[in-house]
Amino acid sequence: MPRVSEAHLAARREQIIEAATRCFLRNGFHQTSMQDVIKEAGLSVGAFYRYFDSKAALIKAIAGEKISVVQATADHLLAQDPAPPLLAVIDDLLRQIDVNLTDDGTVRIAVQVWGEAVHDPQFAALIAEIYGKIRGNAVALAQRAQENGQVPADADPGAIGSAIFGLIQGYILQRVLVGKIDRDTYMRGIDALMGAGRDHR
Amino acid sequence: MPRVSEAHLAARREQIIEAATRCFLRNGFHQTSMQDVIKEAGLSVGAFYRYFDSKAALIKAIAGEKISVVQATADHLLAQDPAPPLLAVIDDLLRQIDVNLTDDGTVRIAVQVWGEAVHDPQFAALIAEIYGKIRGNAVALAQRAQENGQVPADADPGAIGSAIFGLIQGYILQRVLVGKIDRDTYMRGIDALMGAGRDHR
Repeated sequence: MPRVSEAHLAARREQIIEAATRCFLRNGFHQTSMQDVIKEAGLSVGAFYRYFDSKAALIKAIAGEKISVVQATADHLLAQDPAPPLLAVIDDLLRQIDVNLTDDGTVRIAVQVWGEAVHDPQFAALIAEIYGKIRGNAVALAQRAQENGQVPADADPGAIGSAIFGLIQGYILQRVLVGKIDRDTYMRGIDALMGAGRDHR
Repeated sequence: MPRVSEAHLAARREQIIEAATRCFLRNGFHQTSMQDVIKEAGLSVGAFYRYFDSKAALIKAIAGEKISVVQATADHLLAQDPAPPLLAVIDDLLRQIDVNLTDDGTVRIAVQVWGEAVHDPQFAALIAEIYGKIRGNAVALAQRAQENGQVPADADPGAIGSAIFGLIQGYILQRVLVGKIDRDTYMRGIDALMGAGRDHR
């Protein structure tokens, strides 16, 4: 068997992940067969199975790539000193969702995985793992905002992190399922809610 | 053929909807066959098909029932004078989700339908219809809060409605997929975010 370079392996793997993404977006997870993905990727069956042995493994790889990107954004935001305003942080995160929606569309696969996780323990575990990481970032961002006096110091950063995470999940759903919302409108809504606390409670 | 009463028809329909709900929660939409639902409902094939002719029709019926309940809650909240504080409104809506989660669990089916709507036009249309109604309620609640000086009068009620709706969707996802969040914690997070605007922006 010929030696293949690391770069070749990585490129082939990426080729498969992109093909799987297109299939899942077109027909959904259940109506996509491994054969569909193999055909879309333009590989032989033997070559394909060296990389992935199940649809679940493909979903896990797609999710893993996206989580890396989210983590890099969170690291970047957390490294800034002073911490950027909370509204700017949320806007940055929503912007990343927008880029993803118009780019490869993998955020649409996230919504499919949520649906599967309701009744599939393997997907539920994947979501729990990803959620743990993202929520950890949201909590860290809340703590930084507290240290910098942007949110009340006596509030529970875990609670704030969950609410921020909820706003982001809600944005994903509204963008993917309805599309009538844009980031500016959503951000103005969040701003007004914060204004409710400031001026009018 | 014997005459059957309206009450009998309604009871039989409800029996089928409940059986379908159990099947979809147990095995998911795709791994549930019509035969599974017919067996779960304990009906003959002929009797069953007088009520529903497809899985999509079953999902539509389940969603329709839930939307009626959500609409009743929204009507009740909108009829109150003076308008209840926005935080109390959100808390009421989240409480309804909690009841549903421990009751028949149909909110878990909503998450499945979201996943299907990504690639299935029929589900996408159903979600768009439901979303239109719920978002309309959220906008009406935002307008009432504005009239009563609870949120800035110059803000866009559509934007505020979307943010409130987003918070509710995020709560559903976190409750269904992770379960580690409780309503009190989530509400404290929203309260602190509003406090961010009030004191610390």
